[in-house]
Amino acid sequence: MKPLDFKVNGFLFSGISAGIKKDGKRDLGLIYSEIPAQVAGLFTTNTVKAAPVQLDRERVKKGLCRAIIVNSGNANACTGSPGLRDARKVSSLVAKRLGIDEQLVFPSSTGVIGSRLPMNRIEEGIPRLVDQLSPGGWMNTVEAIMTTDTFPKVEVATCRIKGREVKLCGMVKGAGMIRPNLATMLSFLVTDARIEAPLLQRMLKKAAEMSYNRITIDGETSTNDTLLLLANGRADHATLNRMDRDAEVFQSMLSKVCQGLAQSVVKDGEGATKFVEILIRGAQNDEDAREAAYAVAHSPLVKTAFFGEDANWGRILCALGHSGVSIDPNRIDVFFDRAPVVKRGMGVGIQAEKKASRILKKRSFKVTVDLHRGKSQCSVFTTDLSLDYVKINASYRS
Amino acid sequence: MKPLDFKVNGFLFSGISAGIKKDGKRDLGLIYSEIPAQVAGLFTTNTVKAAPVQLDRERVKKGLCRAIIVNSGNANACTGSPGLRDARKVSSLVAKRLGIDEQLVFPSSTGVIGSRLPMNRIEEGIPRLVDQLSPGGWMNTVEAIMTTDTFPKVEVATCRIKGREVKLCGMVKGAGMIRPNLATMLSFLVTDARIEAPLLQRMLKKAAEMSYNRITIDGETSTNDTLLLLANGRADHATLNRMDRDAEVFQSMLSKVCQGLAQSVVKDGEGATKFVEILIRGAQNDEDAREAAYAVAHSPLVKTAFFGEDANWGRILCALGHSGVSIDPNRIDVFFDRAPVVKRGMGVGIQAEKKASRILKKRSFKVTVDLHRGKSQCSVFTTDLSLDYVKINASYRS
Repeated sequence: MKPLDFKVNGFLFSGISAGIKKDGKRDLGLIYSEIPAQVAGLFTTNTVKAAPVQLDRERVKKGLCRAIIVNSGNANACTGSPGLRDARKVSSLVAKRLGIDEQLVFPSSTGVIGSRLPMNRIEEGIPRLVDQLSPGGWMNTVEAIMTTDTFPKVEVATCRIKGREVKLCGMVKGAGMIRPNLATMLSFLVTDARIEAPLLQRMLKKAAEMSYNRITIDGETSTNDTLLLLANGRADHATLNRMDRDAEVFQSMLSKVCQGLAQSVVKDGEGATKFVEILIRGAQNDEDAREAAYAVAHSPLVKTAFFGEDANWGRILCALGHSGVSIDPNRIDVFFDRAPVVKRGMGVGIQAEKKASRILKKRSFKVTVDLHRGKSQCSVFTTDLSLDYVKINASYRS
Repeated sequence: MKPLDFKVNGFLFSGISAGIKKDGKRDLGLIYSEIPAQVAGLFTTNTVKAAPVQLDRERVKKGLCRAIIVNSGNANACTGSPGLRDARKVSSLVAKRLGIDEQLVFPSSTGVIGSRLPMNRIEEGIPRLVDQLSPGGWMNTVEAIMTTDTFPKVEVATCRIKGREVKLCGMVKGAGMIRPNLATMLSFLVTDARIEAPLLQRMLKKAAEMSYNRITIDGETSTNDTLLLLANGRADHATLNRMDRDAEVFQSMLSKVCQGLAQSVVKDGEGATKFVEILIRGAQNDEDAREAAYAVAHSPLVKTAFFGEDANWGRILCALGHSGVSIDPNRIDVFFDRAPVVKRGMGVGIQAEKKASRILKKRSFKVTVDLHRGKSQCSVFTTDLSLDYVKINASYRS
């Protein structure tokens, strides 16, 4: 349910084609809050950070934001101090046009690494972008952040806090866990809830932990990953500033929306033909569960077997074996959906494998591994490694 | 120079088709030393270890070996205690036929994971295998260990120690850094040098560190990796037991042979169209240099760019950025062969990229990254990630 007339009080959106992308599609977007909003942000852990990420990481510390200006087609990464100047310039141009403080404008970029932003096009585009702002314009903003995404990814939700209706609208662009050429994951969420920035940050972190930090396409982390959550308080309930029952209601909505967005990123993974949940059970601790899940989810051999619809459980055991996680191979059980394929480290026979092969023919399935070492578990969502992944990534710039 | 009439004193070889592989190719090999040889061994670090690896790890501790019995087509991995019994049975059958101590026979397997060995075929094959032993039979043994390898990989060398001619013959099977279905890397080396087992082990470790531990196809480690070096002393020079000048002569030959074998594994990587050296310079320490080199060599996006012959240096910086290694993005230089593409973290322009693209069209090239943080360096050899890699690994068992 993504009603196109969904509106979040006090937020305006727009998205235009400014000529940054070669194909003439929308490539410049704006999200604007009529009043200063509390803001929370999470950014790439890559040491190589794009210029706008460097800027936003500083600005988010003050906890206030009024506008996000975002472009696709150019990542403004590996552009040195000139790139940082460009990012500042973009935010000051937007601030001037909107008549707001430059420090409250957060720039964001995704696209080719290593090229300077086409500043004249962005400068030309900003007046149009501001003129077109509207409460229902968020589909245009979503389009403006898409790169190799094959469909726009949005989630909306409502909840009640202290008797008031509270709205949340989120969008994401992904396509690969990373697209260094196109950069990767940008996600922007806006709500009219009234939540103080420190709590908002805590909530965003928790939501990300269960969503964006639980997906992987190819194990890479881009230079531009940005996740921003704005809360402008227009729902007008008493301010939330600690993790009470009302805050839990919002947290639950936020986590669910982030999970929906994150899973849509995997479903639209580059060249993906399969959507796979990897669940590790019975790990000694959470860290082990997570490491083991990623070892399986990142294994090129496991992923090519998924693509080939081959119930090749040996590759899963092998990936677990070199994950660095303490395991006892002779205790491991593996299931494809509910069908057992490995019991105590050994295959359960050709009939079971045939059944498992039928499960692998589905678009979406679940691999469960029980390590029988403890009580921790972790699940991650991933894709197969397909011929199209290679084609897309081998030929992108040409 | 791999003269087919090369012989190592006191070693006999054979290789036959025992019907383990479906295609009727050679799949059972034997290496035999007429007298007990000193032995050194290195095995997979994967926690999931195939049955023969478990056995050999124990037997190598005694430092003596007379025979290696190896099969392809079946890895005898994830086969539990029945698999371990099978591996013991194979070695005892060979020992009986040769009239030697079972503890001096090292079994080795490569192939499909999770299936029991076809014991009757192996039992039937062993008498023929022993009958066909000959000093020049090593090409048959090499064939018997091949799986998806497209060419046999052997290296031979001679050196002089204390006035005596010493010979070394090495063979390897690879194809991927791992083939959990076909298992991975098996390498056997025999020499008539007279070297005591502890020193031999030290030498093998050093040689592997600069060869087998410096290559990667897809970053995976199989359940069956085995590297064995036998020295039977037939060259009859005074025994080497410490790292003196004579030992250095042998070490140098051994390292060179292992490097040749290791690089041939990369060149024959699954679906590989490129052979690439990744050299990291200017790292703060050896560990950082190694981590950074592997981060670049394992990146699916870097590897697909190589396949696409796209001088996409942004992906290299991005991989370095999420390697966990301490870097300053603004100090990094990158070269393709001798052509600079990145200076101080920024691209050097479109002309340089065009030149770099021409370099990427070559079958073999070198990527040099200077981190400008210290004096350590490390180089690893890898391949691209091609459409054929996916095809081979998606369809292997079908």
